[in-house]
Amino acid sequence: MNDMPRTTNIDAALDALRALLEDKLSTGTSILDQHSHDEAYTTPVLPDAVAFPETTEDVAQIVRICAEHDCPIVPYGFGTSLEGQIVPVSGGISLDMSRMERVIAINESDLDAVVQPGVRRTQLNDALRGTGLMFTVDPGADASMGGMASTRASGTNTVRYGTMRENVLALEVVLATGEVIRTGSRARKSSSGYDLTNLFIGAEGTLGIITELTVKLHGQPDTILSATCAFETVDDAVNTVILAIQMGLPLARIELLDDVQMKGMNLFKPELGLPEKPHLFLEFHGSEAGVAEQVELFQSVAEEHGASDFASSTKMEERNALWAARHEAYYAGRALKPGAKGLITDCCVPISALAECIARTRIEIEEAGLVAPLVGHVGDGNFHLNILIDPDDASELDRAKTLAAKVNEIALSLGGTVTGEHGVGLGKKKYMSAEHGGSYPFMQLLKRSVDPKGILNPGKLV
Amino acid sequence: MNDMPRTTNIDAALDALRALLEDKLSTGTSILDQHSHDEAYTTPVLPDAVAFPETTEDVAQIVRICAEHDCPIVPYGFGTSLEGQIVPVSGGISLDMSRMERVIAINESDLDAVVQPGVRRTQLNDALRGTGLMFTVDPGADASMGGMASTRASGTNTVRYGTMRENVLALEVVLATGEVIRTGSRARKSSSGYDLTNLFIGAEGTLGIITELTVKLHGQPDTILSATCAFETVDDAVNTVILAIQMGLPLARIELLDDVQMKGMNLFKPELGLPEKPHLFLEFHGSEAGVAEQVELFQSVAEEHGASDFASSTKMEERNALWAARHEAYYAGRALKPGAKGLITDCCVPISALAECIARTRIEIEEAGLVAPLVGHVGDGNFHLNILIDPDDASELDRAKTLAAKVNEIALSLGGTVTGEHGVGLGKKKYMSAEHGGSYPFMQLLKRSVDPKGILNPGKLV
Repeated sequence: MNDMPRTTNIDAALDALRALLEDKLSTGTSILDQHSHDEAYTTPVLPDAVAFPETTEDVAQIVRICAEHDCPIVPYGFGTSLEGQIVPVSGGISLDMSRMERVIAINESDLDAVVQPGVRRTQLNDALRGTGLMFTVDPGADASMGGMASTRASGTNTVRYGTMRENVLALEVVLATGEVIRTGSRARKSSSGYDLTNLFIGAEGTLGIITELTVKLHGQPDTILSATCAFETVDDAVNTVILAIQMGLPLARIELLDDVQMKGMNLFKPELGLPEKPHLFLEFHGSEAGVAEQVELFQSVAEEHGASDFASSTKMEERNALWAARHEAYYAGRALKPGAKGLITDCCVPISALAECIARTRIEIEEAGLVAPLVGHVGDGNFHLNILIDPDDASELDRAKTLAAKVNEIALSLGGTVTGEHGVGLGKKKYMSAEHGGSYPFMQLLKRSVDPKGILNPGKLV
Repeated sequence: MNDMPRTTNIDAALDALRALLEDKLSTGTSILDQHSHDEAYTTPVLPDAVAFPETTEDVAQIVRICAEHDCPIVPYGFGTSLEGQIVPVSGGISLDMSRMERVIAINESDLDAVVQPGVRRTQLNDALRGTGLMFTVDPGADASMGGMASTRASGTNTVRYGTMRENVLALEVVLATGEVIRTGSRARKSSSGYDLTNLFIGAEGTLGIITELTVKLHGQPDTILSATCAFETVDDAVNTVILAIQMGLPLARIELLDDVQMKGMNLFKPELGLPEKPHLFLEFHGSEAGVAEQVELFQSVAEEHGASDFASSTKMEERNALWAARHEAYYAGRALKPGAKGLITDCCVPISALAECIARTRIEIEEAGLVAPLVGHVGDGNFHLNILIDPDDASELDRAKTLAAKVNEIALSLGGTVTGEHGVGLGKKKYMSAEHGGSYPFMQLLKRSVDPKGILNPGKLV
């Protein structure tokens, strides 16, 4: 479904949408430009207009008009996607969900919340203040809940609390016909029919547009302890993680930052003052006694692998500073090469293959002669390179793309996936056949059945 | 897709299958009879033949022949389903997967295992002996892994370890065309395209036939403590559960047995000698200190709700006896009415609605004048009635069906589902529109797209 031809009916759709939406439709230059790109290395494409629905019914009416005129619709949250998911490659309407930003319900006794798709993850956690509950999925960006569901996002505490797949109970979705359906329920489990909720999660808006989400909440642990420790080699750090996971230690966060990344961190935030060696950043959740027990077990494993500089804190301020530093890793990495932009990889492999995958990746970085700090949610087998590129150096971009391709090939050869949490969009589409084989045409069959006109986010994923 | 007409091409399919399969195809009377029914209250229907594939390629060839002749195929595990899922209502081939019974791989370091669909859940756990790992999903029956995936089964420890949805990483599936696809991978998470794995889980063989599963394993906890305690009322027991869940206690099992069920237990197994009051059966997993801490917290909550007779054990023998008794609840219930058969309900509601749902259900039982012991995975909001019926009393069966219908209506009115873990099959199909609204035609659209000839388990679910 590549290279959708630009339809000639977009103008007719725009006329009808203008009559319907009035000032909820914009064709202003800066608005169009803002909706032409995300944070990926893709060529921007302007939409013909940006619609700002405020209700599910707005979305349904917009989709009906677009369906009538074969006009593409591309859902847009806050533009933080990393694989070009929101680039309107065939023009048409960018559907900006930011005005659907209500936290509709917080059901404390059921540990769930109902939100509109334009709610940001931090906004939901702000709304949860005082309840003793938390929403756990935390990608780097302060993304929208709709976007996070659509890319099956995860983050630093997935190893304990799961991805969006494990944290969405129910959805409201507008189909390509404009019909509104509800999938799932607030019951914690069900065997009642096809799992439509998970069909839309990770579908990047190609099968329907999410207009409401019911998500799981988790109780805040009594005790939270954050810790860092240094290792002589990346292998030592990774093997520590593998052993800790295999022992069943219920780590809440376990993040690897390699020596290159640590150098960037020190340039970016000298007050951190951590040794420029591979590090694990950790978080332990539980009761006071439970956390103490976990830490002791973890330290014994880490020390077997030559860990040093173990530092920890249960103070919120110190913990927040540590995790803010981790979340700023992308910008910290860029400090290694001022003016550079980053090309981000995202592979994920079975944990037993992680050490080999990272070792082979580091050899490729070396051979490419590039600077590429490595950070990873290694408890899940997922890691990212931030390949630093001088935007004015075309050959460097080429080498970076070749490096990224090699990393993806290594991951696939080890039984992994080319995207652990960033999704497919435009950037990873070329790997879909290699990763999925006969399942990829099956995905395309589903897409054609559900959206025969191909109006929903055309050119992405399938 | 009700009332599929019986095709006239079945004989042609049988001829071709006989040539292909030789003695792996049976038309023996007792074999046909065995494959005509499961454990549900549905009218048995004989298949025209039973095929016993031994490899994925066998399955693929059988499906290709059936597709050519529009011949129905109904996958069959061990016949333990509870909603008529394996009844060949349109005749055709019953596809008995019991010879595909190999545990293909146990990947200790990745905490996963690869199995064929005919592997039983206890067989997998036997194979895991000595590894320190366990497969957790435990429906009442010793079902096949393929069947458990196909009905999205769960069990007594779902509250901690999840259903089949959370425990299957990857599948091999034969599509309606005979094509073999692989979904997912052994990586712990992925954002790579549509979640096909979860599309086939719970689809009851209507979208494809599962020929291999990669499932998650969990580390065996250091300490396991089983416990029971009695309450004066079901409400007290349920409210204890609700509070414990809301406090985030990581209970591994928390099962309710009402006073009627306890009476049956005592008749069935007098050596248990538990008071005939509503009970919770519990299991705590963790480190020694962690379990002690959980038990203490739980007891304080239970005592606030008037709990008594708290008994516990960490000895494997005593624990096993307790959980064997719980797993025999169905037979124990029947001891209340010798000669009776049981009609089982399976609703699941948000936990905050559980007390009301059970209270209203018990009023309906009273009004129906029936004996219906209640057991439940109450940590998930899921409970079952075992409505006891004299098989020779038609009016009693009618009243039981009316009662079951009322329970389902109550669950739906409280935002729940008519099936927490048994699936849809024939028995729950009539509730699908009420539960899913516009999502149900969408499921039917998917079915038609994927299996346009309707050969895969026709008449079920959609």
